[in-house]
Amino acid sequence: MDLKSFIRTIPDYPKAGIMFRDVTTLMGHPQAFRRAVDELVQPFAGLKIDKVAGIEARGFILGGACAHQLSAGFVPLRKKGKLPYKSISQSYELEYGIDELEMHEDAVAPGERILVVDDLIATGGTAEAGIKLLQKGGAIVEAAIFLVDLPELGGTQKIEALGVPTVSLMRFDGH
Amino acid sequence: MDLKSFIRTIPDYPKAGIMFRDVTTLMGHPQAFRRAVDELVQPFAGLKIDKVAGIEARGFILGGACAHQLSAGFVPLRKKGKLPYKSISQSYELEYGIDELEMHEDAVAPGERILVVDDLIATGGTAEAGIKLLQKGGAIVEAAIFLVDLPELGGTQKIEALGVPTVSLMRFDGH
Repeated sequence: MDLKSFIRTIPDYPKAGIMFRDVTTLMGHPQAFRRAVDELVQPFAGLKIDKVAGIEARGFILGGACAHQLSAGFVPLRKKGKLPYKSISQSYELEYGIDELEMHEDAVAPGERILVVDDLIATGGTAEAGIKLLQKGGAIVEAAIFLVDLPELGGTQKIEALGVPTVSLMRFDGH
Repeated sequence: MDLKSFIRTIPDYPKAGIMFRDVTTLMGHPQAFRRAVDELVQPFAGLKIDKVAGIEARGFILGGACAHQLSAGFVPLRKKGKLPYKSISQSYELEYGIDELEMHEDAVAPGERILVVDDLIATGGTAEAGIKLLQKGGAIVEAAIFLVDLPELGGTQKIEALGVPTVSLMRFDGH
């Protein structure tokens, strides 16, 4: 099954010159979605992962599925102001400006083994912020996993420079 | 396992007088999350569900897990302006004002059998909008499933008046 063929490319979205990789067509296909989740978690099946942390919003879809498949808990890493309980925050750079990712302060316990999940890694800024939040909470981030990598944007190198291995199921050239 | 005991109640959030039911504590607990997902999908295991539609954002977490468990596809029902491809829209009422839920126009095919998933049903306005979107696409909404029901707000009655059965794993009195 060629999972890459299930990704829809939308030219010039959200702005001219960007080739947007739309993962909803893969997720909407029963066999492709099942295969993608199973391939993402397969390397970690024996590692006693405690929790899977999903990055809002598309990372919630994969993260929920991966957590359930691994019999792990799920931790939401949310955009600023969305979590109801006491939270810790980590800022990251956008193309123009700065944003923040937040996590409940009691979402992880020291020593817990965590996977971070998102649909796609581009520059890696959001994933880096998520990893830092989990590490602030004392957790061990075993790996960061993604459906799609855009390697020209250098995200996986940024994450691996933090000492966190990455897994992605497919790569696309260009932005 | 008393799933209700894993829900954290946050008084006066997001405003005075509201008892907020925080599902992140349940989702963060490996056994509780697994049990909740398995109980939600169990009634539908033999029904050949084609897709699970999750309502942004917490419905993505449960919806992703339910879709994977049922070997179904996943359909995101998103807030206005978040989907990259051609979409259809359905408005719904908030306490003050109106909001819109959107779905890719090709997310479902006529006759497909769908479950709608969210973490919590209150007045049911968002779930109703989601059901209408799926029905506009020609799909058959088999049921709407929720972790938590706030029955005093009348949401499940509103959904069942549309001819869609509901399933929820726990109920809390008050708003």
